[in-house]
Formats: sequence, C-alpha cells, structure tokens
Amino acid sequence: MKRNGLIYAGKAKKLFLTDDEQVLWVEYLDQATALNGLKKDKVIGKGQLNNKITSRIFDYLTEQGIDHHFIQQKSPTEQIIQRLQIIPLEVVVRNVVAGSFAKRFGLEEGQELEQPIVEFYFKNDALDDPFINDEHVLFLEIASKEEIAELKQLALEINHVLRQLFDQLSILLVDFKLEFGRNSQGKITLGDEISPDTCRLWDKETSRHLDKDVYRRNIGEIVSVYEEVLDRLEQLKGGK
Amino acid sequence: MKRNGLIYAGKAKKLFLTDDEQVLWVEYLDQATALNGLKKDKVIGKGQLNNKITSRIFDYLTEQGIDHHFIQQKSPTEQIIQRLQIIPLEVVVRNVVAGSFAKRFGLEEGQELEQPIVEFYFKNDALDDPFINDEHVLFLEIASKEEIAELKQLALEINHVLRQLFDQLSILLVDFKLEFGRNSQGKITLGDEISPDTCRLWDKETSRHLDKDVYRRNIGEIVSVYEEVLDRLEQLKGGK
Repeated sequence: MKRNGLIYAGKAKKLFLTDDEQVLWVEYLDQATALNGLKKDKVIGKGQLNNKITSRIFDYLTEQGIDHHFIQQKSPTEQIIQRLQIIPLEVVVRNVVAGSFAKRFGLEEGQELEQPIVEFYFKNDALDDPFINDEHVLFLEIASKEEIAELKQLALEINHVLRQLFDQLSILLVDFKLEFGRNSQGKITLGDEISPDTCRLWDKETSRHLDKDVYRRNIGEIVSVYEEVLDRLEQLKGGK
Repeated sequence: MKRNGLIYAGKAKKLFLTDDEQVLWVEYLDQATALNGLKKDKVIGKGQLNNKITSRIFDYLTEQGIDHHFIQQKSPTEQIIQRLQIIPLEVVVRNVVAGSFAKRFGLEEGQELEQPIVEFYFKNDALDDPFINDEHVLFLEIASKEEIAELKQLALEINHVLRQLFDQLSILLVDFKLEFGRNSQGKITLGDEISPDTCRLWDKETSRHLDKDVYRRNIGEIVSVYEEVLDRLEQLKGGK
C-alpha cells in the first residue's frame, strides 16, 4: 500500500489517498487545538500517542463486534482506514455532567447521569459546530429519521463497551464525541478517532483529568497525561 | 368571580388567584422586554393589545377544537384562565427561517421550511432559556417520552390552524412560542399567550414585521404594529 496525495488537512490529522480508492492513510499530527482552533500549540509526541491509543481502542471495538473504519496502524503516527463519506455530525455521548452540558444547565461537573444522553452537533467550523436537535438534522438533510435512530443506537452501544474498557483501566468515561460515515455500501460506520482528544476521561480514584481538558483549561501537561492513558491500555493488553 | 392575591409577576403579565382555586386572573402589563429582560420599556397600550389579541386567538382555537387554558376576557387588560401546572418549556414552531434559527445555521431570514420544525427551550431565566433536545427534557424530568411526542403533535396542530388564521389576515406566521401545562386532571393543555410578543408575523405583501422584532431590533413602533394585527383580527371577525 502506497501513501498518495493529501486530500484533507484537519486540526489534528492529515488524510492521504492510497492506491486503493476505498482506503485512506491518516497521519496524526503533533498539534493540540481548542476553542474551535483559537487556541493552538505544537505538542511533540501527541500525534503518536493519539494514533496508538485510537488504534488500540478500535482493535478493542473489533473484539466487541463493533464495526468501524480502522484497518491497521502503519507507523507510530500513521494508520490506514476504510474510506467513508463522513456524516457532518459530532455525536456526543454523556455519562457524567461536564463541559457544555454542565454550563447549559448550571450544574457542577461530576454528577453521574441516570441514563446516558446523546447530543448532535453540526460539524461546521464557520458556525462553531452548533448544537442541534433531530429535526435540524432532517432539515440539513444530514441523515434520515431511521439513520438518526441508528446513530443514537450505535453511539449507545459503543458507549456501553467503552465504559467497560475504561472501567478496567480505572478510568471514568465522562463523555466523548464520535463521528460516523457511510461506507461504499452505504452502511453507517464509526469513523474518526477515539482518544483523549475526543473523550473526557477521569481517573476513578483521584478524578484527575486524563484528557484534552488539561490543555483546554491549562491544568496539566498533555503528553504525560496521554501517556498515562496509553500505558494503562498497554498494561491491560499485556495482562490478558 | 373575585381577583385575589398576586401569585406571579412576569415580564409582561401578572397572575392573581381568584375565589375558584382552579381559575387564575391575568393582567397584561404595559411593558416590553427583550434579551431576557436586559432591554425593558414601558409601552402604554401594549397590555390591552396583547390581551385582546390573545383572547381572540384563543377563541379561534376553541372554534378549531383545540383545548387551551383561556376562559374569558374580563377587561381590556385582564382575562381569566384555567389554572395549569406549567411545563417549563418554550415550545417553538418554525415555518420560515428567522431569528436564532437563521443565526444557528448561518442563513438569511425568509426561506420557507419544507416541514415545520419544533424546538424546545428550557424556561429558566438564570440559564437564559437554553435550547435543549428531547433527552435533556427527560434528564430534567420535565416531561415523559410520551408527553414529548404529545407536545410536538399539539404544537404542529396548533401551527396548522394558526397558519390558516393568519393567512386570512394576509400575515405569514414565521415562527412562534407556545407554553403548555397540565390541568387538574393531568391533561396537557395550551397555556400562556399567543400574540405579537410570542409570534413572528410578517405582512404577506410587504414582509413588514408585525411583531416584537420591531422592538427587539428598533425598527418600528410597537403599539401601531400590534394595533394593526388586532385590527385585522377584528375585521375578520366582523366580516364573518
């Protein structure tokens, strides 16, 4: 497999074509951003940490029977994935009150939700990724009513197995963001990454933040924290 | 029927008890507010205009078989209503792109929607009435899943008949806000008011704003505009 031309440069990843038109090549960048790109820094080592963490988590999802776009890690900072037609939604699942949810309802962070909550945000940088409801998804012609139900169902299933994984790492999965796409057969498939960039992860014993909030809120050092998540994942794998 | 003690003072209305515990007495105030109360002015004549407009519209809804809390107009600025346990939601129905919907999606105002869109906002001044989704309504224990479906269904039915009414007045019903409550039997019932304070109304020929946007946006004189809406309603009634 050969890495060909760049087709997309995002905030934390670059996407390249390959000699197989159904396969893309991803490079994870040493870049941290927050506040829709307003805050931005080079962070040496972050690219390989997210690539490794995401690769391990996708392998775990495979074991759990959950379909996704990940094919194989290619180098410390690279992986290859199935090409999807991305659905421009950020599908957020929340288990614990935090972030914008805490703000929206004037709540302290930390209260566990009785039921996980799914939210949709319209992926649109110019509009600052606005929070939307199901009827907005239909209006935007992003997904059909049936697909909306499927996205929610998939998000909750993924939440279920991810919580079990992080539980074994003594990490509380507070909330996380997923992105989905349609594969060449039109099947809705999990895409993007699953990493401390896209999940809120709190140490179960100390409630210490093990995620991008250390960068967003200037409360810690991103590389050591992401390394800790990767170490715990690798210990788990080793201990099997 | 006797007007007793004040039980609620809102931005545009006061609510009083009566000698019947299932009946409340409403006084419409000569006050205009916008931006969650940040902008506020005394507007002589507004109270009676909204009282009369709302009374006429509720009478029309009765003719259309739609249940609501309105019982009777008592004076130019007063009416009596069935007492409801208010559901703390603003149920917004949109027929045309305008206001926060235009802003959320970066669209010009004026595009007609293929399907009306229903949105929920959590009625909470301290939180600035945040936009929420169905799962948030469940989280807040505001309404059950079945009640959410019922609220949407009722909102769309009311939209259907209101559009027909305003059509006869040569007014486009762009969007509007409803509030519902539960009556003493627990039945979900339309409450609050339906007036140029709570509806966006555009003249069909000129697209002139006939609603509170003239005040919010400083583009006209609130009393003359509300008078025009009342005049058209009264002409329609007279012409029957």
